[in-house]
Amino acid sequence: MKKTVVLFSGGIDSTTALYWALSRADRVFPLTFDYGQRHKIEIRLARRLTTKLGLQHIFLKVDLGQIGGSALTDRKIPVPRGRLTERVPKRTPATYVPFRNGVFLALAAAWAEARGVEELICGFNVIDSPNYPDTRKAFVRAMGKAINAGTKAAFGAEPIKIIAPFVNLRKSEIIKLGLSLGADYSYSVSCYAGQEVPCGRCSSCLLRAKAWDEAGLGDPLLYRLEKEGRI
Amino acid sequence: MKKTVVLFSGGIDSTTALYWALSRADRVFPLTFDYGQRHKIEIRLARRLTTKLGLQHIFLKVDLGQIGGSALTDRKIPVPRGRLTERVPKRTPATYVPFRNGVFLALAAAWAEARGVEELICGFNVIDSPNYPDTRKAFVRAMGKAINAGTKAAFGAEPIKIIAPFVNLRKSEIIKLGLSLGADYSYSVSCYAGQEVPCGRCSSCLLRAKAWDEAGLGDPLLYRLEKEGRI
Repeated sequence: MKKTVVLFSGGIDSTTALYWALSRADRVFPLTFDYGQRHKIEIRLARRLTTKLGLQHIFLKVDLGQIGGSALTDRKIPVPRGRLTERVPKRTPATYVPFRNGVFLALAAAWAEARGVEELICGFNVIDSPNYPDTRKAFVRAMGKAINAGTKAAFGAEPIKIIAPFVNLRKSEIIKLGLSLGADYSYSVSCYAGQEVPCGRCSSCLLRAKAWDEAGLGDPLLYRLEKEGRI
Repeated sequence: MKKTVVLFSGGIDSTTALYWALSRADRVFPLTFDYGQRHKIEIRLARRLTTKLGLQHIFLKVDLGQIGGSALTDRKIPVPRGRLTERVPKRTPATYVPFRNGVFLALAAAWAEARGVEELICGFNVIDSPNYPDTRKAFVRAMGKAINAGTKAAFGAEPIKIIAPFVNLRKSEIIKLGLSLGADYSYSVSCYAGQEVPCGRCSSCLLRAKAWDEAGLGDPLLYRLEKEGRI
């Protein structure tokens, strides 16, 4: 029986990763981190989807506010207005959370090791978000090696595979793949401002709007909010 | 100015690592994790030493009780009596905390990245404790690569060095090195049972007693406790 953990924040990428995992594993554990994020609402909405799917949802707490250095965990650092066209190469944005995915994968690996789960799936991708060092293929590969060098796998136990299936896909391609797997994005939120109704101005909102536009489709989150009379 | 973080639990190894760091860096930040350990007393005693040394002591919380699978974080799993002579090769003991040092190094790296600290020093060693996969040289090297692939170093910032200077030393050699650097071990505790007065029976107590014995010296913690009339 193949058991899989999916890093599941509830955004577009990880929602797609969840459906991708469901299409290939026997038992899927969505894992959501409560890390002191400004947009904590993602946790509540992530739970709505997993409840609908009847999955055992795992929540882990790790307060990255203790680490600081990011607009997503420190209220004193404002979330900048998104500027998709003026991106500076190789410079992390204010919304970069120092080594967040390193911390997440380490904790996910610990959880998996304690339960004999042999796969960690994450929706990381770089084409539309190239300025986050902890989503790149080289990082995923290196982290996988570190995990297997520092857990029971080093003593001969089954290694833990870290899989980032979308790492080289555009976000619009991730959306299309997800839709082909039946993904429901109507409760998936991306906005950094922390409300269910997207601000439409942060980089995450701009990126999401661009992706749905490129996919030639409307965003199901906006349809739902419209239907509910909230926008 | 060289700034260094030392993973500092307050045990023999990390106390030595702290003095080793002080002998070579301009600014040293001892970093102690409150991770839901049974032997939480180590935190209070670690603070005594850093207060005496006048250092800024960093504390980070991450509850590894959420992960489980270890006698050190789950009260339902008893700490076994130590059996130094019957160690099974390549099998983690009940006191192994799944990927603990992976989680610690990831968080330490995040903290260091956010502040431009370029070194992480840890007192890991394997000769006397070979059954913990996350203290081995191969793990330290792999984790260093993962950290530098997943932080700003990947974009050209100064890499973070992970240094485990004692990885191939016996604990008695670590003690001698520490003493040559002026280390004060009288507040350093190792016992897993969670009291300042060591139980004398867990594997950590046995290992510590053996190390002082091999070094041909008495344990300063026991001297202090005796002087205070507590043993």
